[in-house]
Amino acid sequence: MSEESVTLLDGLADRTAWNTEHCPVGRAMELIGTRSAVLLMREAYYGTTRFDDFAQRVGITENVAAARLRELTDAGLLRREPYREPGQRTRHEYRLTDMGRDLAPVVLGLFEWGAKYLSGGRAPLRLKHADCGTEVHVNVSCAEHHDVPLRDITVEPAARRRT
Amino acid sequence: MSEESVTLLDGLADRTAWNTEHCPVGRAMELIGTRSAVLLMREAYYGTTRFDDFAQRVGITENVAAARLRELTDAGLLRREPYREPGQRTRHEYRLTDMGRDLAPVVLGLFEWGAKYLSGGRAPLRLKHADCGTEVHVNVSCAEHHDVPLRDITVEPAARRRT
Repeated sequence: MSEESVTLLDGLADRTAWNTEHCPVGRAMELIGTRSAVLLMREAYYGTTRFDDFAQRVGITENVAAARLRELTDAGLLRREPYREPGQRTRHEYRLTDMGRDLAPVVLGLFEWGAKYLSGGRAPLRLKHADCGTEVHVNVSCAEHHDVPLRDITVEPAARRRT
Repeated sequence: MSEESVTLLDGLADRTAWNTEHCPVGRAMELIGTRSAVLLMREAYYGTTRFDDFAQRVGITENVAAARLRELTDAGLLRREPYREPGQRTRHEYRLTDMGRDLAPVVLGLFEWGAKYLSGGRAPLRLKHADCGTEVHVNVSCAEHHDVPLRDITVEPAARRRT
């Protein structure tokens, strides 16, 4: 088991002695744990800003798009900004916030994993670093820039707040 | 828009001219796009292998746990292995496959993002590299080890297959 998983330290090893009530993964999935929410974020990373484009590119109904975009905006991943084309009424577009941009490693990680295991090892698109032209990957690494596989991760309680 | 998003090259810039039917992100979300599936994978990374522990730690019913674990096993992220305790009948435990382990950057990315934005900047747990003791992070980088923000990513069609 220890070959495969992280190492739990400092009282965490007994998994019956603690719960995951405050787990950030659970909170994150409550917010963006639907296919449509993640695909809307993907579209935002591609540069999509307009309601009709989001709905069409993701392949969801206008009702679903409206509900999801509102959730993503309320949660702070996107912000609504007014725009107006000549002769048209004012409309709103959706732009990425820092919070939305910071989710990119998750969506790119899904892309990489899906390409490897669910697309026969062939991604339909290639993602490269503009500056040097080499391919972009999602990595787990430490502050010393070592690549860190799961089995080399230790997990310990964060310093407790005084109560 | 280009300040925030990736740069689409080679005919992709016109987003009305291509669709996302084969998008690996969409395929990945069809498979693991539920809160319970992701939390079961989190538990597997913590070293959980037994059915009862999965259900209890994730806080889902046995029916949901059974359905999800079967999906994850059928899809290849986990494998079932028999085990037997003295005087008990043979049971099965669930172990990570390479495919399951390779999803770790996504789940760790959700942890990091959720800790930053949904837990007041405080993760309840600290993840470190066992060898050097520095904290573990999920990064987007290129083969030349540059950190790559979204705006420095170019996206182009992969080489086409002959048809």
